[in-house]
Amino acid sequence: MPEFLKLLPPLEALEKFLDAINAEPLREEIATINALGRVTAEPVFAPYPLPSFARTTVDGYAVRSADTHGAGESLPAYLSLVGEVPMGGVPDFSIKSAQCALIHTGGMLPSGADAVVMVENTQIAKENEVEIMRSVAVGENVLQIGEDVKKGEEVIPSGTRLRPSEIGGLMALGFIRVSVAIKPKVGIISSGDEVMPPESEIRHGQVRDVNTYTLGALIENNGGEPVSYGIVPDELEVMREMTARARSECDIVVVTAGSSASARDYTSQVIDGLGRPGVLVHGVNVRPGKPTILGVCDGKAVIGLPGNPVSALVIAGLFVVPVIEKLLGVSMKHIRPFVPAQLTVNLASQTGREDWVAVQIIDSEEGFLADPIFGKSNLIFTLAKADGLIRIPADANGLSAGERVNVFLM
Amino acid sequence: MPEFLKLLPPLEALEKFLDAINAEPLREEIATINALGRVTAEPVFAPYPLPSFARTTVDGYAVRSADTHGAGESLPAYLSLVGEVPMGGVPDFSIKSAQCALIHTGGMLPSGADAVVMVENTQIAKENEVEIMRSVAVGENVLQIGEDVKKGEEVIPSGTRLRPSEIGGLMALGFIRVSVAIKPKVGIISSGDEVMPPESEIRHGQVRDVNTYTLGALIENNGGEPVSYGIVPDELEVMREMTARARSECDIVVVTAGSSASARDYTSQVIDGLGRPGVLVHGVNVRPGKPTILGVCDGKAVIGLPGNPVSALVIAGLFVVPVIEKLLGVSMKHIRPFVPAQLTVNLASQTGREDWVAVQIIDSEEGFLADPIFGKSNLIFTLAKADGLIRIPADANGLSAGERVNVFLM
Repeated sequence: MPEFLKLLPPLEALEKFLDAINAEPLREEIATINALGRVTAEPVFAPYPLPSFARTTVDGYAVRSADTHGAGESLPAYLSLVGEVPMGGVPDFSIKSAQCALIHTGGMLPSGADAVVMVENTQIAKENEVEIMRSVAVGENVLQIGEDVKKGEEVIPSGTRLRPSEIGGLMALGFIRVSVAIKPKVGIISSGDEVMPPESEIRHGQVRDVNTYTLGALIENNGGEPVSYGIVPDELEVMREMTARARSECDIVVVTAGSSASARDYTSQVIDGLGRPGVLVHGVNVRPGKPTILGVCDGKAVIGLPGNPVSALVIAGLFVVPVIEKLLGVSMKHIRPFVPAQLTVNLASQTGREDWVAVQIIDSEEGFLADPIFGKSNLIFTLAKADGLIRIPADANGLSAGERVNVFLM
Repeated sequence: MPEFLKLLPPLEALEKFLDAINAEPLREEIATINALGRVTAEPVFAPYPLPSFARTTVDGYAVRSADTHGAGESLPAYLSLVGEVPMGGVPDFSIKSAQCALIHTGGMLPSGADAVVMVENTQIAKENEVEIMRSVAVGENVLQIGEDVKKGEEVIPSGTRLRPSEIGGLMALGFIRVSVAIKPKVGIISSGDEVMPPESEIRHGQVRDVNTYTLGALIENNGGEPVSYGIVPDELEVMREMTARARSECDIVVVTAGSSASARDYTSQVIDGLGRPGVLVHGVNVRPGKPTILGVCDGKAVIGLPGNPVSALVIAGLFVVPVIEKLLGVSMKHIRPFVPAQLTVNLASQTGREDWVAVQIIDSEEGFLADPIFGKSNLIFTLAKADGLIRIPADANGLSAGERVNVFLM
């Protein structure tokens, strides 16, 4: 039997683990159009200001603001129209006193002009003469050079996961390629003599492999590249060889334990023999997932997950995802959104242990309710039927019906 | 000038719009391993129960529970060991009275046995004899057939966006292929005489195209397939031809308006000429994004977005994403997670109009703060610097500093 001599709290276990991993994010340059969801490997600085020329934010007339002082509906200013600003070009005229030019949103302010009067506040008096019925201040309705972004400004920090808005920002500055962290390769080894590939006809007593696919999908969702090493039998030597191969070919290795107690022991033996320092954490004070093994072998993370699909997926969220993020260089500011809800029932838990409970969200008249999904089976459909997970902190001995909880969507 | 005769509230505009769209989700069968994030096109039913045989949830000894009645540490029951259950196989023995068999987590319960005693509550007395130091009830530590999933049960409803747990659930049932909705093609047309492709050297007065890429990324993130039709000049005939082409080749068409007032008018003229009923909504009571045009041409959605990159992206989130979801057949239960935070400043707004404001989230000692990003520029870096958006409802005339708000991450 494995002896859990010391069960670390999850956060403490994670810190100890992350500290021992060598993470020098590797970078590659890719087309910006393919960079959605990727993580920047270096900060991006603006090579020139945005806007790079003074532009109007409205349709109207470019003017010298002084010419409009005192203008109103009852006493308009009359300016002579000297031209129309071409979209995408430089006006070939300038605005002198008592002159104005027609200008469209986004057009360049002609030299001499310092403000724009909205078309709604004007009227064509006669040919080439415009009535200005409202005064404007210097700079009114004008975007100045560098007002969005200054030349040399850091516009996207290193370690940013690129969203649609950053993809657009890069394009606005002409960066059609961007330097991003290479996706860490995460090797996945499933074990268990009873576990068969999903495509096989299974015999009585066998089950289909689930963990390779749930973990692969989780890794993909979080910016890693899953590499499947298939299912190994519960034999020490085979597991040792496969884990060594995965360690040499990947950046992170995940082994889901076989079902027997001896198979679970193999994982820690294998990790200890694979490189230094070997097993760092054997057992974490969390449910599900107590028999988690966190190891580092010559700088690379090797993680032993429980074989139960629910435990494996919950624990991978707690311990595999942060390693992927460290290798990607994801910056510290990392806010996980959630759905606040009210718990429907009392949930008991053991003080000192952190629990994660699968819940369905019910949209009721009093707001969202979090309804735990019970069932001792703890098989994969516990999670497939759930909307998310709630956390019972280690310092609580449970949660009460009606209490506010945060549901982290899966 | 476009006349906003009637500005609809966003939700009302959306309902009117969605009602007029023909949505018969088209399906394709793909490998389950590639189906992460895709939407099921039909419900999935379990072809057999899970587990499909009675299994133990612990390591221990399979017993007839009656044989353990009254057993305790001071008065153990002695059972003779008749074998070990092979992992992945069917035991070739059965358990008779006063007998037991070694069994590992996940192993099949031998016939005759009805419970499992955990190994921690046993002791090897002598060869082939086991001391049972705790009584077990019928079914204890055993998963019965169908306890996770019953034969014929609907395990994944139609319209489910597949997460890691559902991918695993499909594999557990042997579904290595799955029927999903085909990704709707969304044609994107940018317009504006001053707009240039990002890779071009730009002249003074020109700007690089942003909307094609922010919208493309948003569409991709939400399960659509963006198809770029490039940048068209502010000319009615060119826009008409390109929009007609996009409408025939795609399921949804998005046109970002050129900068001039006449170009904005072109969009509604083009939509009205493209099919029936044409423009349904011209102008929405929302900021940013008032000049939004929602049209349906012979069953297909054609949407005119403002040219300003912030407006275009916010409005696409409000009106393009729901159309994609309708075409995908995403089920109604759709809960958007958020981060609750406290507003740092007063925000004014106009009663009757819904406002969306870009904010940064600050992690302070008193919890998360939502700090609005100001700047009249409203250019793309307003959003690139933001963590999310907050909504000022139409019935409010602003929000006060210190008020609780929900930040929807972007």
